[in-house]
Amino acid sequence: MKKILVQLDSDLQPSVFDRVVAIDAGADDVFAYGNVQPDQVEGLVHGAIFTRGPKDLKNTAVFIGGRDVDAGQKLLDRVTKTFFGPIRVSSMIDCNGSNTTAAAAVLAAGRHVDLSKATVVVFGGTGPVGQRVSELVASSGGTVRITSRDLERAEEVANVLREHVKGDGKIEAHETASRSGKLAALKGVQVVFAAGAAGARFLTEKEWSGIEGFRVAVDLNAVPPTGLEGIDLQDKGQERHGVICYGALGVGGLKMKIHRTAIGRMFETNDRVYDVRAIFELGRELGV
Amino acid sequence: MKKILVQLDSDLQPSVFDRVVAIDAGADDVFAYGNVQPDQVEGLVHGAIFTRGPKDLKNTAVFIGGRDVDAGQKLLDRVTKTFFGPIRVSSMIDCNGSNTTAAAAVLAAGRHVDLSKATVVVFGGTGPVGQRVSELVASSGGTVRITSRDLERAEEVANVLREHVKGDGKIEAHETASRSGKLAALKGVQVVFAAGAAGARFLTEKEWSGIEGFRVAVDLNAVPPTGLEGIDLQDKGQERHGVICYGALGVGGLKMKIHRTAIGRMFETNDRVYDVRAIFELGRELGV
Amino acid sequence: MKKILVQLDSDLQPSVFDRVVAIDAGADDVFAYGNVQPDQVEGLVHGAIFTRGPKDLKNTAVFIGGRDVDAGQKLLDRVTKTFFGPIRVSSMIDCNGSNTTAAAAVLAAGRHVDLSKATVVVFGGTGPVGQRVSELVASSGGTVRITSRDLERAEEVANVLREHVKGDGKIEAHETASRSGKLAALKGVQVVFAAGAAGARFLTEKEWSGIEGFRVAVDLNAVPPTGLEGIDLQDKGQERHGVICYGALGVGGLKMKIHRTAIGRMFETNDRVYDVRAIFELGRELGV
Repeated sequence: MKKILVQLDSDLQPSVFDRVVAIDAGADDVFAYGNVQPDQVEGLVHGAIFTRGPKDLKNTAVFIGGRDVDAGQKLLDRVTKTFFGPIRVSSMIDCNGSNTTAAAAVLAAGRHVDLSKATVVVFGGTGPVGQRVSELVASSGGTVRITSRDLERAEEVANVLREHVKGDGKIEAHETASRSGKLAALKGVQVVFAAGAAGARFLTEKEWSGIEGFRVAVDLNAVPPTGLEGIDLQDKGQERHGVICYGALGVGGLKMKIHRTAIGRMFETNDRVYDVRAIFELGRELGV
Repeated sequence: MKKILVQLDSDLQPSVFDRVVAIDAGADDVFAYGNVQPDQVEGLVHGAIFTRGPKDLKNTAVFIGGRDVDAGQKLLDRVTKTFFGPIRVSSMIDCNGSNTTAAAAVLAAGRHVDLSKATVVVFGGTGPVGQRVSELVASSGGTVRITSRDLERAEEVANVLREHVKGDGKIEAHETASRSGKLAALKGVQVVFAAGAAGARFLTEKEWSGIEGFRVAVDLNAVPPTGLEGIDLQDKGQERHGVICYGALGVGGLKMKIHRTAIGRMFETNDRVYDVRAIFELGRELGV
Repeated sequence: MKKILVQLDSDLQPSVFDRVVAIDAGADDVFAYGNVQPDQVEGLVHGAIFTRGPKDLKNTAVFIGGRDVDAGQKLLDRVTKTFFGPIRVSSMIDCNGSNTTAAAAVLAAGRHVDLSKATVVVFGGTGPVGQRVSELVASSGGTVRITSRDLERAEEVANVLREHVKGDGKIEAHETASRSGKLAALKGVQVVFAAGAAGARFLTEKEWSGIEGFRVAVDLNAVPPTGLEGIDLQDKGQERHGVICYGALGVGGLKMKIHRTAIGRMFETNDRVYDVRAIFELGRELGV
């Protein structure tokens, strides 16, 4: 029986990236849908769950993508609401690669620092990847400082994320529009994640090379300039000014490995839901 | 040479259901098109008939689906008009599953009653499945009572269907808005089909358990409540109050078998046209 | 690793024709996109070039199609602009079959006449296929007379094409609205290509059978009437009135062979660009 991945994408054109990865990860067929609206989901998912017998449902799965992370979350909610009892298929959400990227970034940092005891700054922490990085670090027990040029925006996001975090982790909001705000955000941090929009430079090399106790920098900008000056896209554990550095391409291999493995795992059973947490756990399990 | 099914669907998003069934029935590739308009058909069909040599055309086929049965019929008309001489491919129409469902329902009833001599009621007989059930029973020689809350609507549909029916079968129109109308419709029937919209309940258990001579009930509502109270979705020849009962899931296995077999048969030769009659004949041939 | 062809089509519904040919030419999967806009190309191509390692990129390719040749050219420009260094995939453009058709037509004529020394008329020379035929003949060193009912239009196209032609070839503009214009265009020609719109008849049999020195006629109208009266769609080197004749179906086999071979060749390396010239060179290399 062929392994079929139903790709539900909120973009007008369904992602080529996600389709290729799905094929390379073992899907025999990808049914790609673009411009998917929430009210179309039920009918499409019915086609996924009502066409094969219960023990064959592991050969069908649903992948949710698209640039708009919030739109994707709405699609996932509809997907899981359509399931009932054992009549379900595995599903995964990775809009714009945000979940696999965040997981890979946090796993990379976790190789060098015990995140459960660390204080980390997430520049661009209000964006899709930044939010997910923050959630993962706080859920590991660490203290996360979400930054934004706009303190209210940072606090708003921090409030939402706190509801998702269980355990001892903390999420703080910081503004970085002022120099004093930036200094306060960076005081005593061991890890910095840069997850801003393309073109956003957060720190000059001079600024970050002088931070005391700074151990790991993960810069997720895939297009120059990097968020932290002096970090290279290809950095993969490179030491610079005593700080272990990762660039976007340096964590890209791990991101791809997690993405492919998650696709493959969906076809092992019919009840997996790979959201950001499950994707992170999968990465951890890979021992990477 | 790969078996290619060109799926032309009038819905915005082409049916996942039909795609999965096509793959499981042996199509190597499904080219799925959504929001297909009649004036787009010729170009698409040219691509199906002009790309492979005459003796290889059996490896390409066209499937027409979508929720809107009338829109589908218009697409099929355009498809068959584009063919000429031996330059054609096999085609099938099963909008919203109406043809395979109707065929399976009539075949199920025909196991227990000689439909050529039976009088049957089709509740929801003006809907897509109901119309096809009515056409199949009348074409078998039986007497069909199409019901609607609106007598004019029932008569209108009956008039259209009569034009398609050859042989001795009869199609009558009944209103069921009044209690007396319902009683008249049910008088002396051996078979009742319930093919209404989701949520439409036609008869209480008390009403149908007292009908004299009533032998078989086929209820096609896949979502509770069933059209006839007391029938279970899973019923598959279950006897209740002396009546042999089928629920939607009870005929679903047969429906799927017919659907899959029709897909497979299309790839045996390049000149099959599976409309509701041919689909019914195929089911009969399967001996089910 | 599966061979994936990303089909970018400017039509609302991506061409079935191009999809079937791609599958038959060895693509394992065709990712078909319709209604593709230039600003969507970069994201789609990123998905093609960033998902597989450099040495595996030959297993992914891009095909550009659709009825609108100019729209297709814009898509190709965006595709090739997205590539950088070795991070690229092979690509091909054949909107409405114009490139493979033009290549096959010129190759057919070239079997019988040395085009580098010939004078040819291209009826319908301002249309997509006519323009490409003209470019190919002029690039071979021949003299091309582009005709139109509107001299200005013919001159406009001739001016654009001259910029693309290197070497000794010449492109002239002729009007054929007047009888004298038509006679002037035909004086001393060895080859006539008819590449007009469906229904356009350029010459009666009497007109063309009397042209002195006329050696080869290639009529590309696939639907009767042919552009030159008396030529049959199936003609494939048929001699009529001392002229070697080809009809649309007569060059169709060669066109298909070129199309299929080009698809196959794209998957041999990651850096081919099959535009009209490269497609013509490929046909020449096939020795046909």
